[in-house]
Amino acid sequence: MIINAAQLCELLQGELVGDGKIQITGPSQIDKGIPGTVSFLANPKYEDFAYSTEASVLIVPKDFTPRSSLKPSLIKVDDVYGAMMFLVEKFSKNGTPEAGIAPSAILAADFVPAHDISVGAYAVIEKGTTVGARTVIYPQVFIGHDCKIGEDVLIYPGVRIYPNSQIGDRCIIHANAVIGCDGFGYRPDEQGHYNKISHVGKVILEEDVEIGANTVIDRGTLNYTRIGKGTKIDNLVQIAHNVTIGEHNVIAAQAGIAGSTSVGNFTRIGGQVGIAGHINVADRIEIQAQSGVHSGKHAAGSRLFGYPAFNYNDYLKSYVVFKQLPDYLNRIAALEKEIAALKKDKE
Amino acid sequence: MIINAAQLCELLQGELVGDGKIQITGPSQIDKGIPGTVSFLANPKYEDFAYSTEASVLIVPKDFTPRSSLKPSLIKVDDVYGAMMFLVEKFSKNGTPEAGIAPSAILAADFVPAHDISVGAYAVIEKGTTVGARTVIYPQVFIGHDCKIGEDVLIYPGVRIYPNSQIGDRCIIHANAVIGCDGFGYRPDEQGHYNKISHVGKVILEEDVEIGANTVIDRGTLNYTRIGKGTKIDNLVQIAHNVTIGEHNVIAAQAGIAGSTSVGNFTRIGGQVGIAGHINVADRIEIQAQSGVHSGKHAAGSRLFGYPAFNYNDYLKSYVVFKQLPDYLNRIAALEKEIAALKKDKE
Amino acid sequence: MIINAAQLCELLQGELVGDGKIQITGPSQIDKGIPGTVSFLANPKYEDFAYSTEASVLIVPKDFTPRSSLKPSLIKVDDVYGAMMFLVEKFSKNGTPEAGIAPSAILAADFVPAHDISVGAYAVIEKGTTVGARTVIYPQVFIGHDCKIGEDVLIYPGVRIYPNSQIGDRCIIHANAVIGCDGFGYRPDEQGHYNKISHVGKVILEEDVEIGANTVIDRGTLNYTRIGKGTKIDNLVQIAHNVTIGEHNVIAAQAGIAGSTSVGNFTRIGGQVGIAGHINVADRIEIQAQSGVHSGKHAAGSRLFGYPAFNYNDYLKSYVVFKQLPDYLNRIAALEKEIAALKKDKE
Repeated sequence: MIINAAQLCELLQGELVGDGKIQITGPSQIDKGIPGTVSFLANPKYEDFAYSTEASVLIVPKDFTPRSSLKPSLIKVDDVYGAMMFLVEKFSKNGTPEAGIAPSAILAADFVPAHDISVGAYAVIEKGTTVGARTVIYPQVFIGHDCKIGEDVLIYPGVRIYPNSQIGDRCIIHANAVIGCDGFGYRPDEQGHYNKISHVGKVILEEDVEIGANTVIDRGTLNYTRIGKGTKIDNLVQIAHNVTIGEHNVIAAQAGIAGSTSVGNFTRIGGQVGIAGHINVADRIEIQAQSGVHSGKHAAGSRLFGYPAFNYNDYLKSYVVFKQLPDYLNRIAALEKEIAALKKDKE
Repeated sequence: MIINAAQLCELLQGELVGDGKIQITGPSQIDKGIPGTVSFLANPKYEDFAYSTEASVLIVPKDFTPRSSLKPSLIKVDDVYGAMMFLVEKFSKNGTPEAGIAPSAILAADFVPAHDISVGAYAVIEKGTTVGARTVIYPQVFIGHDCKIGEDVLIYPGVRIYPNSQIGDRCIIHANAVIGCDGFGYRPDEQGHYNKISHVGKVILEEDVEIGANTVIDRGTLNYTRIGKGTKIDNLVQIAHNVTIGEHNVIAAQAGIAGSTSVGNFTRIGGQVGIAGHINVADRIEIQAQSGVHSGKHAAGSRLFGYPAFNYNDYLKSYVVFKQLPDYLNRIAALEKEIAALKKDKE
Repeated sequence: MIINAAQLCELLQGELVGDGKIQITGPSQIDKGIPGTVSFLANPKYEDFAYSTEASVLIVPKDFTPRSSLKPSLIKVDDVYGAMMFLVEKFSKNGTPEAGIAPSAILAADFVPAHDISVGAYAVIEKGTTVGARTVIYPQVFIGHDCKIGEDVLIYPGVRIYPNSQIGDRCIIHANAVIGCDGFGYRPDEQGHYNKISHVGKVILEEDVEIGANTVIDRGTLNYTRIGKGTKIDNLVQIAHNVTIGEHNVIAAQAGIAGSTSVGNFTRIGGQVGIAGHINVADRIEIQAQSGVHSGKHAAGSRLFGYPAFNYNDYLKSYVVFKQLPDYLNRIAALEKEIAALKKDKE
């Protein structure tokens, strides 16, 4: 969306002070304002930035009177914060593909396009797959056969969805994520050679799940790998086969969850965390970044740290001592000398 | 594959009890049975699940007599386990693309299609590249020039193979994996600016290697990066330039191996493990998830843990003490007081 | 590039000894020489390899006289090292796509092709995006609307660039990397459900930045995520929203930098390192692989290790004691016994 200051002012029903013709391509922060953008002065304590910002338009409270001259055009509004939310939302919608099916998209013969879907160039959708209304499939996406894709789903370029996967309403899947590939399962024979175990299960994403770019979710072996509704998963995360994750969790970038583990609801899992296979992680557990969780015995609501992880505060206390271990070693050696001296004295 | 219970029964040469028309789309576990799937009761101790499962068809031993009524149709067979293996295999083949070359695949003028290959829509294969019989290249794959792809290889959507790579027979490469990109090699100049070192080597995957989704394997600088036959690599793994990995290893998700390191045979490398560059990892070594291996001095068959990694059991013993370090600190302080008191007494 | 030994000799203005018709497809190391390649004997101490190498051509100093017969053809030159650099460069250029726009590339109606650009098959470029002269866009790339791509940029297959991103001159972006996806930002409501925060900022890569395969760089929330000129980022790295990274840094594979953190110039960040959000990392800091940096208090030029990270040498000293903690525990217990004995004696 490109819009000029006067149009912006009309949209916000504000009052314009300055040049109305200046073009705006998006918002920016007042302290790092960029020419051609609109910034916001909601909190009077940041007023100084109004005189130095590079932003071209500044949205200010109705009663704002600059104490010296400023470069940006001003738009005076009743509710700066509300105007900001409104505009960010508006600019973020900017550029979502329009409904319609690109001529180069390859759809199976049995595909029935739902109301207002968008399928981008060079996307491929195999037979038996259904896609709900208003769902946007960007260019170059692959969706295997017999998938069920819900309504209002957003699937970014290069996402690969293996056959039989289910994607709930309003899910968002970022670029190059892979959903439903085979789990890492092999049976070693007598020579220690690995024979692949067939994976015929599926992946189920419930409603309102978000999956980050380049994240991978393996299919179940026989049953499914399931991500509960409202759970948000960041970039480059690994979710192994048969994992079940509950509702409203957040899992930060590069975390990995090994096979057949279950995670409860409302947990917070830090970046680069590893969770071992075949354990249960209780509700509301918080796991500090890079920790390794090896056990399912931690109570709901625990805060964990370390490798293997235990109580967060206890880890920090132990780590303080760890950092001074050479000193403690010296103190032990000194004690040993003193005892030896005392014993000698006695003889 | 969609099949009804009667057809399934005929396939297994079993005896049908119940509705033969019910449609089956795949298998499921008896304790988590899904409507429209077939489950298995091989072990009598799970019989209770037979009365509660949601599965539509249950495969049971010939002599099975239910102690009360059950919902699923039954198929009685001589060998439940054998029937299960047979069906899982059958359903997993379900949906592999048929042989043939999609009209939208772009093949170099010199490309000679081998017997029964499949090349999917929007795949691109550059000049000088050969592909063996029965190999399946899914849609949207890129294979650079002068690659050699073996027979019976499976290359999933979005895989990118840089020029000159060699992929052995029966390899499987999952979606969005990248094979043969430049290694991370630079020469800093006097100002500390980095000049790129050209990478003209290649990647060699021997036979029966499996590569997970979004995994990356860098090409060699001058020579090659090589993955030995039968080695299985999980998702999101990093293999740097000039690394050589032996045969029949398993490398779990998100592990990373730095440049010019060699790994022996029959090792087991856990998830998120890091292995430093320019070291040799001996045969049959097992590395616990998240460990950091900094040295090549560990003997064949060692089990490692920690950061830097050492003997697994020794790490756990040290870690038990680590968790109680604040207590030990108190004990040292108490000893110091006692000694001070003893010394004072003596004066 | 395929060339025979006689042509190679002419190129290097050398003197040929042996078969001139043998075909060469690239270089290799003398100790791991591959048939059909050219190797180099620059250092006399490696002469033994000349008699065992599998390479087909060997480049040797003008005064080299073999002490016994050898298999490869020889090319005698004044400067072996110079010849090697020249050839590596030459072979590495081998196969870069020629300038031109593939008929299947989908370009927005407003796209103006700059001088000598190359756009590969099935690439998609949305409206408002500009691409500088001599830039190469490989097949199957996606570039969203309103991006600015500089001159002499190399964008490998499957890269996804979200709208509004800026890519500086001479940047290299490896296959399947994702630039500009939404940051991982949510506002929890009273029930603990997460509401997505709109991300309308952008990503800015300055000049001479290299981005590894499958690496992800999130867009800014309101402003930008910025990577300074000359910074090199390896494969599978995560750079979160609003991060700013200075100039001439190297960031190894699988490292992750959390939201809103800033990194100075000339730092060296090891593989699998995690850096917490909202901190500043000073210039020239070196971070050992797998470390977790939780604080911005480390001085410029520090070398860090551990989790949380502190001084590299101090970590190693503490870790030496950690490995022997069970022994120290025994020594404490022994001291306690001795003291108890001494006290008893006194009674």
